[in-house]
Amino acid sequence: MSETMLDWLAHRAGVMPGVIALVDDQGEHTYAELDQRVDRCAGVLWAAGVKPGDRVAMLAWNAPEVVELVHAVSRLGAILVPLNARLRVEELAFQLRDAEVALLVCDAPLAETGAAAAREAGVPPPRVFPLDERADSAFPRVEAHASGDPLCIMYTSGTTGLPKGVVLTYGNMLASAAGSAFNLGVLPGDRWLAVLPLFHVGGLSIVIRSVLYGTGMVLHRQFSERALSASLRRDRVTHVSVVATMLQRLLDVDAEPCASQVRVVLVGGGPVPEALLERAAALAYPVVQTYGLTETASQVATLAPADAIARLGSAGKPLVTTRLRVDAPPGEPGEILVSGPVVTPGYFRRPEATAAAIRDGWLHTGDIGRLDDDGYLYVLDRRDDLIVSGGENVYPAEIEALLLRHPTVRQAAVVGLPDPAWGQLVAAAIVADDGAAPEEIRLWMQERLAGFKVPSRIERVEALPMTASGKVQRRLVREMLAGGNYL
Amino acid sequence: MSETMLDWLAHRAGVMPGVIALVDDQGEHTYAELDQRVDRCAGVLWAAGVKPGDRVAMLAWNAPEVVELVHAVSRLGAILVPLNARLRVEELAFQLRDAEVALLVCDAPLAETGAAAAREAGVPPPRVFPLDERADSAFPRVEAHASGDPLCIMYTSGTTGLPKGVVLTYGNMLASAAGSAFNLGVLPGDRWLAVLPLFHVGGLSIVIRSVLYGTGMVLHRQFSERALSASLRRDRVTHVSVVATMLQRLLDVDAEPCASQVRVVLVGGGPVPEALLERAAALAYPVVQTYGLTETASQVATLAPADAIARLGSAGKPLVTTRLRVDAPPGEPGEILVSGPVVTPGYFRRPEATAAAIRDGWLHTGDIGRLDDDGYLYVLDRRDDLIVSGGENVYPAEIEALLLRHPTVRQAAVVGLPDPAWGQLVAAAIVADDGAAPEEIRLWMQERLAGFKVPSRIERVEALPMTASGKVQRRLVREMLAGGNYL
Repeated sequence: MSETMLDWLAHRAGVMPGVIALVDDQGEHTYAELDQRVDRCAGVLWAAGVKPGDRVAMLAWNAPEVVELVHAVSRLGAILVPLNARLRVEELAFQLRDAEVALLVCDAPLAETGAAAAREAGVPPPRVFPLDERADSAFPRVEAHASGDPLCIMYTSGTTGLPKGVVLTYGNMLASAAGSAFNLGVLPGDRWLAVLPLFHVGGLSIVIRSVLYGTGMVLHRQFSERALSASLRRDRVTHVSVVATMLQRLLDVDAEPCASQVRVVLVGGGPVPEALLERAAALAYPVVQTYGLTETASQVATLAPADAIARLGSAGKPLVTTRLRVDAPPGEPGEILVSGPVVTPGYFRRPEATAAAIRDGWLHTGDIGRLDDDGYLYVLDRRDDLIVSGGENVYPAEIEALLLRHPTVRQAAVVGLPDPAWGQLVAAAIVADDGAAPEEIRLWMQERLAGFKVPSRIERVEALPMTASGKVQRRLVREMLAGGNYL
Repeated sequence: MSETMLDWLAHRAGVMPGVIALVDDQGEHTYAELDQRVDRCAGVLWAAGVKPGDRVAMLAWNAPEVVELVHAVSRLGAILVPLNARLRVEELAFQLRDAEVALLVCDAPLAETGAAAAREAGVPPPRVFPLDERADSAFPRVEAHASGDPLCIMYTSGTTGLPKGVVLTYGNMLASAAGSAFNLGVLPGDRWLAVLPLFHVGGLSIVIRSVLYGTGMVLHRQFSERALSASLRRDRVTHVSVVATMLQRLLDVDAEPCASQVRVVLVGGGPVPEALLERAAALAYPVVQTYGLTETASQVATLAPADAIARLGSAGKPLVTTRLRVDAPPGEPGEILVSGPVVTPGYFRRPEATAAAIRDGWLHTGDIGRLDDDGYLYVLDRRDDLIVSGGENVYPAEIEALLLRHPTVRQAAVVGLPDPAWGQLVAAAIVADDGAAPEEIRLWMQERLAGFKVPSRIERVEALPMTASGKVQRRLVREMLAGGNYL
């Protein structure tokens, strides 16, 4: 590709100034309005010293200001670092330091946390929404990016427990938007509802896709099943991305058939349970299950509604922008490998981690899967015993590392247990000195760890089941905790 | 973009084997069938010695074999050189030599012409459709291309009269398909009708787009207004690309409203006359006018049906994959410049022509245009006095160069004259020795030049109108020929 990527928002503002770009709780905003606000935001960032190539971190819940910030950072040629708003100070500080962030922008509710994290990381005090300073708007506008320029760096954890920054480029985002459109379809006038956090790739990709498509985005500040149900009808939504938990709660409050203009309900974060699929089908919800990763700028494979029951538990077939391989003989389970223009060029300043993950152009996901005879993907085990709870990824290694820092804990194993509402719950088995009450340990962890990562259950055990080579056997830990016979 | 482009057809055959890929006069063909035929074709080419990077030229009218050849050449990692089937032996031989073609593939009606051109160019005797030799199908399959790898080289002429090979990459094609989809929309089950020649970018891009979208392509061997009219209904066509002449002739035979599932009638090759637009609107034809170039892998800008009358004569607004500039003060006419991921990396082995055309990332089209206050593009004059006749581009310099090779012709000027059926007709004014009858010169030209390039009128004049610096004033030539006062 002749490598120029344009300022997609500026383009849309020029081509379709009066078309609705964003619907939020304040009303509808045209592309011209959004473009102006982004200019104002970019002016403020520029006045604050942001230069091309700088990393600008964002700590905020969903809000129109976040959408503006995403585009403003890009317009300055800077790189966005979206931070998970659920993290604790210590976790945030690590990412701020790792990405060598020049500026942190927070929303008001997270301003204090952000300030503490910035202090700990040696980053200037954060700017807080609304960025309403009177800025000289005459900033140097970056009108085009190379395809390989980073648009953002998103952190994910992994085996080591240390989060790594996944670099996603303009080219990755364009390819992802194209692959999604060529699979799910796109029409002028479409509207994609974002209730997933914009600091995750599943949310952020909606922001980018919408300007590329010139379609509208309906933004929810937080998940509410009643608000979602009303919005699907009122806001003429055609696409919505959710996790299974959200779909479940939506159907619990709304027994009406799905609004007829909704063409796609994209469900990520693991397979949808059969009972839920059947309820959704009965109400004509067009449920498209998807398997995706931060490293692939979101969707890798999708399962069409028509196949949902026949291929129960499958994540479907790859998009045209992704190639999928299972590193095993045909039909056997093995590691899922992905290649194609959606795949990240690598982890920020982690050449070794990059070389380990991307070999011969194939991203080694760490997830275990199987392809059936017809090419449908079944994801059997998430990478590195990843736990997915309510759509958030939890890496056992990170939780175990913290547990071992507690003065009384000698050994720890963290696993996911099945849960009807959240998909999985985080649970820990520990070997600990006498005198340590699990509830105290939980409170101690809550100060240091995002709430969704703190084990719902911590159980003391006599010993952890180990392999001959001294590795914890997580499968047996899961059985212990599920069965209750741990002491 | 992490630069891997996949084998899009193989992907579609894996993901949707039973979906209709191609509709032709033999019936409907699924992606699985097309994929198998392409494998067979690639096997034949491989047995004929085609290696990765080789140029494979194609001289054929529209046919399913052409679609197969396009994909087969790509699957071998070779580069397609589509030749205009209307060219004469001499013109073809130039392009075969210039592209250093390894193999030429012809259809049966063009086999003799192709053989003569190959002989003249020193290329092995052509293979002729159907390529039904029993080939060992075990060819080395190229499963992925870099984004910047050439998919094809398409020849266009220019000021010098010598055709240049425009290199179009996989990345160009993906960006073009994305830009088109993000503008016109795409839905699973769509069908794009190709009646434009596949040896032009307007036709070839339908082949590529269809596999990228996983949608169907309806192929017509040649233009017939009655066949087109019937096909739009019978074949459930949603998109069709035509030139204005075709639309005119379609409406002349069919006074019924446009089939309701047709969402886009894409009309290229210059603005549609007002009277035709009004007839089309009255019959609910969704006419989308477009401005495009070979150098941009087709569409650059489009004008939506709703704007057709209000912005009469405009080519509309740019796609999200193209940036448009007019090299002049705001509102004034100037050269049209284009940048973005659809722009060719350059002309095949013509570094100087490439450097002249692409400067600072902007393609200098040579076309003259104006942007109005709302950003609508008006193309005022085609580059280098380009003549567009029935959708075919004719470059005066090329025709003039041939005229000057005739023993009696001393001076020549070629211009386009308005024509209700073809948009423009080619006409020549010559200064010639006594004894040369224009009709003899025409016959002499017909042996050497594609029919559409041969002037419909050749008029002898006393002298050509010249500028002080000795340049022919084409505008005055046009007036002379239009007014008839030339001798």
